[in-house]
Amino acid sequence: ADIAKGRAKAIQCQACHGMDGIAKIPEAPNLAGQNEDYLVKALKDFKSGARQNDMMSVVAKPLSDDDIANFAAFYHSLGR
Amino acid sequence: ADIAKGRAKAIQCQACHGMDGIAKIPEAPNLAGQNEDYLVKALKDFKSGARQNDMMSVVAKPLSDDDIANFAAFYHSLGR
Repeated sequence: ADIAKGRAKAIQCQACHGMDGIAKIPEAPNLAGQNEDYLVKALKDFKSGARQNDMMSVVAKPLSDDDIANFAAFYHSLGR
Repeated sequence: ADIAKGRAKAIQCQACHGMDGIAKIPEAPNLAGQNEDYLVKALKDFKSGARQNDMMSVVAKPLSDDDIANFAAFYHSLGR
């Protein structure tokens, strides 16, 4: 996984999750330092439809496996 | 919400999520300092079946609204 690519693409996540991984809205989770395996599963579940959310179901749909791995690595790397 | 009641009942959560809210297994998320609204929704979705997980779908089923509010308050209170 490529943390730098994850950071670059996380521009699209930051309105809700923050570039520092601290959520900007109460209904979104903080992601900084979150477990990487958990983040990968969350994004794959939103992409597949196994997990549903008005925002995430839309934005996860076009993500590749690499995108997902990179986002997870980036948010995990931010630490707690 | 009652943080002390949430802490007391979180004995049942600690094998995976830790009493300090730091997950003990890679597939579980850290919960310490997580947004309270997000945690309430997660537990309600696991209880209703809107969100599915082998472990959480079982353990969330018997929770009352008070239990859910207390867990969310407790894990949020642990801070980041």
